[in-house]
Amino acid sequence: MGGILLPDLGTEILIPLCAVVGILFSLFQWYIVSQVKLSPDSGRTNNNNNKNGGVVENLIEEEEGLNDHSVVTKCAEIQTAISEGATSFLYTEYQYVAIFMIPFAVIIFLFLGSVEGFSTSSQECTYDNTRRCKPALFTAIFSTVAFVLGAVTSLASGFLGMKIATYANARTTLEARKGVGKAFIVAFRSGAVMGFLLAANGLLVLYITILLFKLYYGDDWEGLFEAITGYGLGGSAMALFGRVGGGIYTKAADVGADLVGKVERNIPEDDPRNPAVIADNVGDNVGDIAGMGSDLFGSYAESSCAALVVASISSFGINHEFTAMLYPLLISSIGILVCLLTTLFATDFFEVKAVKEIEPALKKQLIISTAIMTVAVAVVSWVALPSSFTIFDFGSQKEVKNWQLFLCVAVGLWAGLIIGFVTEYYTSNAYGPVQDVADSCRTGAATNVIFGLALGYKSVIIPIFAIAVSIFVSFSFAAMYGIAVAALGMLSTIATGLAIDAYGPISDNAGGIAEMAGMSHRIRERTDALDAAGNTTAAIGKGFAIGSAALVSLALFGAFVSRASITTVDVLTPKVFIGLLVGAMLPYWFSAMTMKSVGSAALKMVEEVRRQFNEIPGLMEGTAKPDYATCVKISTDASIKEMVPPGALVMLTPLIVGTLFGVETLSGVLAGSLVSGVQIAISASNTGGARDNAKKYIEAGTSEHARQLGPKGSDAHKAAVIGDTVGDPLKDTSGPSLNILIKLMAVESLVFAPFFATHGGLLFKYL
Amino acid sequence: MGGILLPDLGTEILIPLCAVVGILFSLFQWYIVSQVKLSPDSGRTNNNNNKNGGVVENLIEEEEGLNDHSVVTKCAEIQTAISEGATSFLYTEYQYVAIFMIPFAVIIFLFLGSVEGFSTSSQECTYDNTRRCKPALFTAIFSTVAFVLGAVTSLASGFLGMKIATYANARTTLEARKGVGKAFIVAFRSGAVMGFLLAANGLLVLYITILLFKLYYGDDWEGLFEAITGYGLGGSAMALFGRVGGGIYTKAADVGADLVGKVERNIPEDDPRNPAVIADNVGDNVGDIAGMGSDLFGSYAESSCAALVVASISSFGINHEFTAMLYPLLISSIGILVCLLTTLFATDFFEVKAVKEIEPALKKQLIISTAIMTVAVAVVSWVALPSSFTIFDFGSQKEVKNWQLFLCVAVGLWAGLIIGFVTEYYTSNAYGPVQDVADSCRTGAATNVIFGLALGYKSVIIPIFAIAVSIFVSFSFAAMYGIAVAALGMLSTIATGLAIDAYGPISDNAGGIAEMAGMSHRIRERTDALDAAGNTTAAIGKGFAIGSAALVSLALFGAFVSRASITTVDVLTPKVFIGLLVGAMLPYWFSAMTMKSVGSAALKMVEEVRRQFNEIPGLMEGTAKPDYATCVKISTDASIKEMVPPGALVMLTPLIVGTLFGVETLSGVLAGSLVSGVQIAISASNTGGARDNAKKYIEAGTSEHARQLGPKGSDAHKAAVIGDTVGDPLKDTSGPSLNILIKLMAVESLVFAPFFATHGGLLFKYL
Repeated sequence: MGGILLPDLGTEILIPLCAVVGILFSLFQWYIVSQVKLSPDSGRTNNNNNKNGGVVENLIEEEEGLNDHSVVTKCAEIQTAISEGATSFLYTEYQYVAIFMIPFAVIIFLFLGSVEGFSTSSQECTYDNTRRCKPALFTAIFSTVAFVLGAVTSLASGFLGMKIATYANARTTLEARKGVGKAFIVAFRSGAVMGFLLAANGLLVLYITILLFKLYYGDDWEGLFEAITGYGLGGSAMALFGRVGGGIYTKAADVGADLVGKVERNIPEDDPRNPAVIADNVGDNVGDIAGMGSDLFGSYAESSCAALVVASISSFGINHEFTAMLYPLLISSIGILVCLLTTLFATDFFEVKAVKEIEPALKKQLIISTAIMTVAVAVVSWVALPSSFTIFDFGSQKEVKNWQLFLCVAVGLWAGLIIGFVTEYYTSNAYGPVQDVADSCRTGAATNVIFGLALGYKSVIIPIFAIAVSIFVSFSFAAMYGIAVAALGMLSTIATGLAIDAYGPISDNAGGIAEMAGMSHRIRERTDALDAAGNTTAAIGKGFAIGSAALVSLALFGAFVSRASITTVDVLTPKVFIGLLVGAMLPYWFSAMTMKSVGSAALKMVEEVRRQFNEIPGLMEGTAKPDYATCVKISTDASIKEMVPPGALVMLTPLIVGTLFGVETLSGVLAGSLVSGVQIAISASNTGGARDNAKKYIEAGTSEHARQLGPKGSDAHKAAVIGDTVGDPLKDTSGPSLNILIKLMAVESLVFAPFFATHGGLLFKYL
Repeated sequence: MGGILLPDLGTEILIPLCAVVGILFSLFQWYIVSQVKLSPDSGRTNNNNNKNGGVVENLIEEEEGLNDHSVVTKCAEIQTAISEGATSFLYTEYQYVAIFMIPFAVIIFLFLGSVEGFSTSSQECTYDNTRRCKPALFTAIFSTVAFVLGAVTSLASGFLGMKIATYANARTTLEARKGVGKAFIVAFRSGAVMGFLLAANGLLVLYITILLFKLYYGDDWEGLFEAITGYGLGGSAMALFGRVGGGIYTKAADVGADLVGKVERNIPEDDPRNPAVIADNVGDNVGDIAGMGSDLFGSYAESSCAALVVASISSFGINHEFTAMLYPLLISSIGILVCLLTTLFATDFFEVKAVKEIEPALKKQLIISTAIMTVAVAVVSWVALPSSFTIFDFGSQKEVKNWQLFLCVAVGLWAGLIIGFVTEYYTSNAYGPVQDVADSCRTGAATNVIFGLALGYKSVIIPIFAIAVSIFVSFSFAAMYGIAVAALGMLSTIATGLAIDAYGPISDNAGGIAEMAGMSHRIRERTDALDAAGNTTAAIGKGFAIGSAALVSLALFGAFVSRASITTVDVLTPKVFIGLLVGAMLPYWFSAMTMKSVGSAALKMVEEVRRQFNEIPGLMEGTAKPDYATCVKISTDASIKEMVPPGALVMLTPLIVGTLFGVETLSGVLAGSLVSGVQIAISASNTGGARDNAKKYIEAGTSEHARQLGPKGSDAHKAAVIGDTVGDPLKDTSGPSLNILIKLMAVESLVFAPFFATHGGLLFKYL
């Protein structure tokens, strides 16, 4: 067995160092964005600034309205309204979530504490009978603390992301006056602020928590990393409410605004006369930004926890090899540096000069980060791992070489890239699939919806094969640890992924602000082009989120099974099979709830918007102002109310199944919901993305084919709008929430595994 | 071990007797239907006839146009056109399917023959090493023969069903002149013809095949029933092409006709001016009738085969207890008698007098048949089974009591009823869910589509629990044999199920003929009422088909696993897990293909219909006749061409996976496609059914709420039409084809199991 090249002290320095570098880089990007001034007088200064820089000249295709001070003031006003709406919604949401979280924390403590009957004496270790481990009661306490920490970090990730996005949106609009390249850079930098802050923050909090817990646990790494899993649960539980609540909010507003504004009143998207327009823009920030932030933070936290908990019962944990043990965190740390380098390619090494360069630039980010990361992972695997070690494999230990573990991470990383590209192919209007969907609008909304559904279903095929191959490779090499590090591989470039992902809603908002501020058609065209690319990157981001969620939940599932001391999950037993069947049903139940919620909330919104158009004199003529606040309140109330039942379904299912039916059935439920949920999630998000871009394709009219279908207001365009409206809840509410469903049930099962193994399966015990 | 009360001679008499009784009853019903004359003069005779019968007086709400001879002639003409179109399509389809079937039969022979290297010497039995069994070469020959027999029987079932339906449709229209009750009886009797013919025919052919094969196999029951599984494969393979081809045909025509006729030209459904109207009516017969007939015959054949193959290696087969061995066939035989009795409740004991009695009458059929069947099964289980016996349970033998087996059948039977009722609740416009969908039309097509999808997802929950409970009970009591007989239990009332199912498309056609023949609004209203109930029963029928498919494929899966000599299918192995994940993806791939096919075919149809409206002068005014034949040809060509890729996907997947990856991965694929496919199938069929009835709800305007949304042509109604169009391919093409996907892959794996076990898994062997 070859030694580990990287000394423990190196690890102790490297991890926090990378995290701090990430945070500093993020602050630096924020500083650059903040240079775009939102007060009229300094607008000119900034402008002069640019004129001085000779390099940027060809970026400025045509400057428009740079001296129009009233526009800047208007943008600032709208930004404030959006930011206030988003902040107040998140505060309300967090209050309600807290009501849910506190009793849940108590449940964690009580259930885990009861495993050894709240005894304070040390117990026999689960895997190593020769040693004594810390009492279950203390693991219950530490798990609860980790849960709270994870929840708070997730909350902070979402909140900060929202703050950055609402800070950047109006600035992107203002820069769009100078050209599409300028606007792109601002939106992209703002995305990077969020990406790096989240990645670095998540890493740092996790690392510090491990160090602090280690003070109590000492050499009992089994207990230590079991308690750490609470961090993943906390992160994911918050993410669930963020995604579901935010998703309902954003789509209720969006669908409501579109149905009355675009379809009935024939006014453009984001028209300031539409009472739901502010709510719609707030929605992008609380749904796509805060929700997505919490979601990916959750994935990251969970895959780290899954890897750590398996490692703690493998040779790393048994031999107390600190550096090898923290291999998952080292991967993430190096990932931050790689993403930093990658970002420079978009912001400094190359420049976006025209609309058609936007998508390639974002695509290049994915390729570059993946390529560099592959080398970086090879280096980390070489220096941080012994050349040979053993990994826990459902009851036995399996020998693994360091190059095999490198392959596990690499296969996850590249599978992510493939998923990204396939998603791009199916959702970008540069390719056949979206153009086919647009073409089907010729025969009306019905064929458009049918083609969109078929496209979504078809787009599942290659991603599933990519996930299957990475599962097969990593599973064969290193069992569940392999899967966990493959998931980490996919998430290692999370900072870049989030950057290009957050870029989308920021551009969307920028377009809205341009429209509301009454800026010219040209500027709106520029932001629309940014937004179309943003739809694709949002779909790519969702692809990543889903792909990694699949791997993460499999890893968590494996960790759960190990922790619950079952060695096989045999489909040929009735307990497991019914679990599998019911588990595969859960994503449908969940989607039914969320889609119905969006539908009902949208109905309320439609009625309010109609009422305002009918009752407020002069609204259509633009002489009276609509009552934005009521629409914001409707979205807020609806999403707060409606997020509870789906949330309860996900949170309670593992508890009920584990307690009543036991760990075998719960294993089936987890496997079933995983294999079924991942398909619906991918197809829903691509269906929605494709329909949205089919609509944009017709609106932009950049090809002969598109012009035949358009312009705005044509029958084909109307059909496309209906298709887009149907796709909205699929891609922004039910689809992305499903990631969390599958991850959260798995991590919850893992946390409660000791309880289920001891007290679970009541129904079968007494029948 | 208590003895068997029913002597073998009794079994030998009872099974063919019941089959013959079923066939005779079916012919008797046909005779009654044929009494409605389609030639002008005898119309009056029939009418006089009724007047003589005092009891029927109050059935005749108001007679209309009974003496209008030209209407009768017109009906006869239209019927001939529909019947000719359907017959010519089925002939074309069968020719193409034959091209696929012949090489497939050769593959079966070659693959199975190669298991023992085409040796003609007897071999060691698989399960009983002490005995010698017939050579694999002969089992290959007999399997191939059984495959061909199954295919031909399935073909005959579909074809006869279509013939009966096209015979009955115009007769139902003519009877509708006399009142809704009269029309109901004709449609229902015609459905019964099909139901009984199919059930009895399937039973008889299977029974005779067993007797004939036994002449060669003698006491080698293991080989005998292994060869018999080919029967199930043949039946299901035909059903696949019938469902997919017929499904594409019917929906291409329907969607095409609706999009131009109803949406663009604002002419009513089934208006004779619409060039696609004949194709649309042909479609109902080849898709919903012939396709459904083949499908349910396939389920029936497969569940019998699955039960028999497991029984052959259980104590029945080992001890050569003939009566107990044929227990599955006895259940089906008694089922025919029970259904016969049940039918009398609808045709003779009670009468339908008003529109609102139609649905309850059909529902009563389900309840009565289930209740009587429960008693009948108890009797059969008591007389045909020893009080205690053993069942093969993945490598060991499990002791089972006869009352436990009774419970297995009963739980399947009642789960079927529950699925039927839940389906009714979600798809009938008498209840909240459909009314909610109709209500959502107020805000347009988009919310309608969203609500419809959410409804479909939600409707999955209870059926899945019902299936899960029946799996748990029957699996726990009697392993895979229990599952197989539970499936048979659900299908034991197949004659009644098919009768109420076939009733739907017949009524739909009757409405079309009324419209085309220019009959009065009142008559159309009556047929519409029949049709609305028909949509619900069609959805119920699909619910049964899916529920039984889930049980059947699980039973086949179990038989496959037993035959392939694997004792566990452990999710915690990479080979199985990737199979599970990819298997869960297959229904999406398949649906993408079929939906895209419907979409493309519909586009072609729309263009042709538009062309005719534009180019044929006087078409809209009704002075010129459209060119129906071209539309029929478009549907035919499109469905023949488009059914090949999805068919190939389903037929080739088990062969490729089994040969390259081996039986473990194939097990995963089967389990994955089962648990995922059943959900999509249920939700797709209910979404479509609910949207169709939401549209009908608005059209009928029977409540205050419905009148607010209507009338025909209102914005809400237009939205409902779009929703219906989107739902059509879901409920009639992709949804119901998924049953066959999951069953067919399982039965194919079972048939090829000896080959895969011997030569499979090439990839892993050489890597």
